[in-house]
Amino acid sequence: MERVPTGVKGLDKMLEGGLPSGTCILVLGGPGAGKTIFGIQYLYMGAVEYNEVGLYVSFDESPVSLRKNMECFGWNLKRLETEAKFFFLDLSPIRAFPKEIEESFVKMNLLETIKKKVQEIQPRRIVIDSLATLVVQFPNVVERRSTVINLFQTVMDVGATGLMLNELPTTYYPGRELQVEEFLAHGVIIFRSLEERLRIFKAIQIEKMRGVSHDSQLRPYTIDNNGLKVFSKENIFVPATTIPIRTTK
Amino acid sequence: MERVPTGVKGLDKMLEGGLPSGTCILVLGGPGAGKTIFGIQYLYMGAVEYNEVGLYVSFDESPVSLRKNMECFGWNLKRLETEAKFFFLDLSPIRAFPKEIEESFVKMNLLETIKKKVQEIQPRRIVIDSLATLVVQFPNVVERRSTVINLFQTVMDVGATGLMLNELPTTYYPGRELQVEEFLAHGVIIFRSLEERLRIFKAIQIEKMRGVSHDSQLRPYTIDNNGLKVFSKENIFVPATTIPIRTTK
Amino acid sequence: MERVPTGVKGLDKMLEGGLPSGTCILVLGGPGAGKTIFGIQYLYMGAVEYNEVGLYVSFDESPVSLRKNMECFGWNLKRLETEAKFFFLDLSPIRAFPKEIEESFVKMNLLETIKKKVQEIQPRRIVIDSLATLVVQFPNVVERRSTVINLFQTVMDVGATGLMLNELPTTYYPGRELQVEEFLAHGVIIFRSLEERLRIFKAIQIEKMRGVSHDSQLRPYTIDNNGLKVFSKENIFVPATTIPIRTTK
Amino acid sequence: MERVPTGVKGLDKMLEGGLPSGTCILVLGGPGAGKTIFGIQYLYMGAVEYNEVGLYVSFDESPVSLRKNMECFGWNLKRLETEAKFFFLDLSPIRAFPKEIEESFVKMNLLETIKKKVQEIQPRRIVIDSLATLVVQFPNVVERRSTVINLFQTVMDVGATGLMLNELPTTYYPGRELQVEEFLAHGVIIFRSLEERLRIFKAIQIEKMRGVSHDSQLRPYTIDNNGLKVFSKENIFVPATTIPIRTTK
Amino acid sequence: MERVPTGVKGLDKMLEGGLPSGTCILVLGGPGAGKTIFGIQYLYMGAVEYNEVGLYVSFDESPVSLRKNMECFGWNLKRLETEAKFFFLDLSPIRAFPKEIEESFVKMNLLETIKKKVQEIQPRRIVIDSLATLVVQFPNVVERRSTVINLFQTVMDVGATGLMLNELPTTYYPGRELQVEEFLAHGVIIFRSLEERLRIFKAIQIEKMRGVSHDSQLRPYTIDNNGLKVFSKENIFVPATTIPIRTTK
Amino acid sequence: MERVPTGVKGLDKMLEGGLPSGTCILVLGGPGAGKTIFGIQYLYMGAVEYNEVGLYVSFDESPVSLRKNMECFGWNLKRLETEAKFFFLDLSPIRAFPKEIEESFVKMNLLETIKKKVQEIQPRRIVIDSLATLVVQFPNVVERRSTVINLFQTVMDVGATGLMLNELPTTYYPGRELQVEEFLAHGVIIFRSLEERLRIFKAIQIEKMRGVSHDSQLRPYTIDNNGLKVFSKENIFVPATTIPIRTTK
Repeated sequence: MERVPTGVKGLDKMLEGGLPSGTCILVLGGPGAGKTIFGIQYLYMGAVEYNEVGLYVSFDESPVSLRKNMECFGWNLKRLETEAKFFFLDLSPIRAFPKEIEESFVKMNLLETIKKKVQEIQPRRIVIDSLATLVVQFPNVVERRSTVINLFQTVMDVGATGLMLNELPTTYYPGRELQVEEFLAHGVIIFRSLEERLRIFKAIQIEKMRGVSHDSQLRPYTIDNNGLKVFSKENIFVPATTIPIRTTK
Repeated sequence: MERVPTGVKGLDKMLEGGLPSGTCILVLGGPGAGKTIFGIQYLYMGAVEYNEVGLYVSFDESPVSLRKNMECFGWNLKRLETEAKFFFLDLSPIRAFPKEIEESFVKMNLLETIKKKVQEIQPRRIVIDSLATLVVQFPNVVERRSTVINLFQTVMDVGATGLMLNELPTTYYPGRELQVEEFLAHGVIIFRSLEERLRIFKAIQIEKMRGVSHDSQLRPYTIDNNGLKVFSKENIFVPATTIPIRTTK
Repeated sequence: MERVPTGVKGLDKMLEGGLPSGTCILVLGGPGAGKTIFGIQYLYMGAVEYNEVGLYVSFDESPVSLRKNMECFGWNLKRLETEAKFFFLDLSPIRAFPKEIEESFVKMNLLETIKKKVQEIQPRRIVIDSLATLVVQFPNVVERRSTVINLFQTVMDVGATGLMLNELPTTYYPGRELQVEEFLAHGVIIFRSLEERLRIFKAIQIEKMRGVSHDSQLRPYTIDNNGLKVFSKENIFVPATTIPIRTTK
Repeated sequence: MERVPTGVKGLDKMLEGGLPSGTCILVLGGPGAGKTIFGIQYLYMGAVEYNEVGLYVSFDESPVSLRKNMECFGWNLKRLETEAKFFFLDLSPIRAFPKEIEESFVKMNLLETIKKKVQEIQPRRIVIDSLATLVVQFPNVVERRSTVINLFQTVMDVGATGLMLNELPTTYYPGRELQVEEFLAHGVIIFRSLEERLRIFKAIQIEKMRGVSHDSQLRPYTIDNNGLKVFSKENIFVPATTIPIRTTK
Repeated sequence: MERVPTGVKGLDKMLEGGLPSGTCILVLGGPGAGKTIFGIQYLYMGAVEYNEVGLYVSFDESPVSLRKNMECFGWNLKRLETEAKFFFLDLSPIRAFPKEIEESFVKMNLLETIKKKVQEIQPRRIVIDSLATLVVQFPNVVERRSTVINLFQTVMDVGATGLMLNELPTTYYPGRELQVEEFLAHGVIIFRSLEERLRIFKAIQIEKMRGVSHDSQLRPYTIDNNGLKVFSKENIFVPATTIPIRTTK
Repeated sequence: MERVPTGVKGLDKMLEGGLPSGTCILVLGGPGAGKTIFGIQYLYMGAVEYNEVGLYVSFDESPVSLRKNMECFGWNLKRLETEAKFFFLDLSPIRAFPKEIEESFVKMNLLETIKKKVQEIQPRRIVIDSLATLVVQFPNVVERRSTVINLFQTVMDVGATGLMLNELPTTYYPGRELQVEEFLAHGVIIFRSLEERLRIFKAIQIEKMRGVSHDSQLRPYTIDNNGLKVFSKENIFVPATTIPIRTTK
């Protein structure tokens, strides 16, 4: 099966090369997990290192704000945009004025707008940020299922490999409820924030990846000036001794 | 009672020979558990080793995608299909367009379509992937019960042995809510993903198997190039010592 | 108070002789717990050892299937049926076609059908398998209460001793919600599946038994070729040492 | 404050003499906890040792069944009834036929029937078994509150001391939801079934008792041939060592 | 900021003098926690030691019953009432007959009745027992918020310092849901009943106290013949050793 | 990225200089966590140390009450108001009389009133206290999302940096449900109250901060005469030894 490297080296090692090509991968994480950073890094590295065209569909943030937030990683999105290697589809206005437009029209239109854009620019890599802002408009579970499936189909129809960023509805814990999207996607990557003995650890987990063998253990990751970094050979370690008290003046 | 070997050797040992013939077995698991791999392996091994005709009813994935995902296990489904040993019933289009067809017609039609196909090809082995996509259309619990029962009856009417793949609604934990399907099925096999001390273990459990004695302990399993492998003589072990911390640079 | 031995020796010891005569006992358990085996064993032993007529009311499984499943225990139900010591009331068709008959008629009819059969054959032992399939039709809690009570009354009117098999809505854990049936029944026996340190233990517990003294501790049970076996002098034991890890190749 | 001994010696010690006179005490417990035994014992001891007239209002069980169940404790209720020291108000028919009578009439009538009986026989001790069967008819929380209050008032208007037996909606655990009745009653006594390390312990707890000082610790109790026995000087003890495993053949 | 001593010495130490004057403090506790005792003690001590007029608004209990319950602490409320230092506003009839009066009239009237009484007697200390009986009539969360705020305003308009007694909806545990009243009040004091290793401990906690520094640790309290006693220098201690088992005969 | 120091030195160190300029930060905390103190401190320090104009939008408390509560920290808000460095927008009346004004008008008006005020005084720093009082009026999740987004936009349109104070719906624990606001905000700061072994610890956590690197560990904080103090180099420590019991007389 053909692979698409994510551009995050440790993660590509966990994936034994990269994501399976032509699929849709769900990326789950809480606030501050780095989902958006991962999404941009995936497109940026794709453009710079593999010369692949990327499309970023943004429901939650304007391109202006995104470009600015990504500057600290040294990623010059503007330049890639000028080179037609990186495209924004800015759907963020929709989230602020849902009441002013006829409801079902909005829903149809969102999917249609994405489809048209995708077919127009024929990207190799697509990021949807976030699925939650889209599906929140579909309280009916059957409709929600078919919306997600249609979106996936849109991505796969052009042979692209998509990352579907999504909000984790709870801080991740053993025993959480599974979401329908996790069953529908070809793969699921979870960015977790672990709290053990009052210390916080960030860890990445490949919950599911159809058709390719992969590392399914928790691996630590950090976010620094170069973006996400995954430590594919490390385990998550928790201190063995109970921590002594120290009073702070 | 006559037995139907699953083709997964370790599991067949746990079952003391195989599944009871002419029954419907529920297969539960989270995303990435390997339910679909197990379903295909059951039909593939049935065709290759026991010369039994198999039917795969797919609600969630197209035959094209399934064939491709199974290549990494060396399972040539196309060849079996040509030999009329393996049949796909592709119901995946239904999941994307439920609104365009009159609702109750869809529901009737799904069951009728499966029934017709089953009676036409008279398979010995049937896999439904997944029950969840079917029952999601029946929010009423009484209707849901009778749909599941009718589906089971369809399988048993031709003397086939069926695997009903189903989504586990939560990551499995002590104290989870039981599903009505677990009580209706003749047997229940659960693919679990255990998280203990930040390590992830995969384990299989036979929760229920009517009319045949079986191993009811948790047994480890892996997914490798040959598909599922169950270690029927192993227990699940968890490290005894608390893991020391190691900082990652 | 007169006693009715269940035919499961260890359980009869826990009950200091048997169930109180002329009462209705709730039997709770998860999938695979052995509720149906227990129900059949109760009637089989009653017929063979005490020459008492038994009635099995089945909502979930056909007599054909039940007879077959019980063969592995060496219980020849067919012979007992010919000797008029064992009767089936097969209500399983009802569960598959609830929509085709007028709803309230169905409900009335179920209770009436049971009543007529009970009064016709005047059994000493009655098993309802399962209460869940009946009460699922009564979402209103007041109606549910009175249905259960009427069913209990039907059993007691002929002086029979009844086992009401029922599905446990969750895997049993400390802190589960109690069901209204547990308060209405004269006694409650729970078949539990305990998961401790990734090992699974089966244990029986007499939660309630009005009017007779009884052992209220958890006792281990197994299911083998002779049916249920309860170890009335054993405690449930859990390994003291943390289990060392062993990697499986 | 005047005291009313419950007749259970250990409990009377915990209460430093008995229940506060002229109040309504809520008695909570799961199935098999012994609430009904406690209720009958309270009236029986009141009649035999203190020559006080008692009234038992039964929603759930017929007098015939109750008399029979209490025989094993050597309590001859029939004799007390002949001596006009013990009265049954049998409201159990109501629970089986709620649909046949006009709904709000039923509700009014239940309270009115109790009131009339109470004022007619002027008992010193009253037991309601159980509050749950009454309040289940009032899904509205405001109505439920006022029903409970009116019932309490009925008891206190004749200067009687009442025990309101009630079902605990969950197996008791730290963190359970409190019920409105616990705030409305003058006192709350809880019969708990503790499960620690797979051993079951029965313990009584006085959660609340207005106007009198009392022992608020958990105390063990047993049910034997003489009824309830509370060990007011004992603590609940749990084995310190982890229990070694013993395999059962 | 001016302080109002509660009259419970240990608590006043935790508050570094007393409650902030002219505020509304929420007092939360389960059944039997001693909320009512604390409310009366606050008014009694205010009258006797600081010569301040107090008003007790009772939704749940009649003045007759309250006076009687408080006798065991040696608090002669009747005398204080004659001296016009202690006033009852008895709103308890309302809870029994909510249906007989037009609903919204009742709601308006309750607030109006309290307001009129407060403005008439101009108390320095006010206790509402309990907020729960009032807010239960307002299922709508926005209405509930504004009712609570209006009640608080009524207290503060006359410069009084109010205790709002309220029912804790669960036995207190880490992770409970917070109530809107906790955010609206100027301060929150919680009476907790801790259950550790089957021993019960009572502890008081100042969760919030705007504008004044205070001790936010858990402190033990007891209820004896003199009312509430808070041990402001003690911590809650739990036995370190696992308790050995002792069988009770 | 330009920084805005919060004025709480330890927190500014955790943020490596301060909040990212021109963004909206969510501040979550339970009752008594110090959210309001933090909000005022942010504006006070901004005015005094950086000469920046601040706006405090208050839904829950009147300016009179706020000024008084802040006196204990030595913050003279009145003086800053006279110098036009600190502005109150008092929307607290709205919370008491929501029924008297037409509902949707109220909602529109709240957002419009804030917008007008913001554009009039062009503040550099804005605090909304609290978001909860605003969003409680929008039970529909889509409407709630767009209200929050519009409010954020209002802040960012004038280039201000906003703190959105919000109520934590539960006492914070691993596994809590995430709120939609946490995903919409540019940053999330959580004030937590940790209860470990019956001791209470206050800790601050930066859950999310887009575009700037930051310390994501839990850090202790206290509230003293100078306001909030964050110990950016300290960890939270919990006593290692089990605490011995001490009886209190």
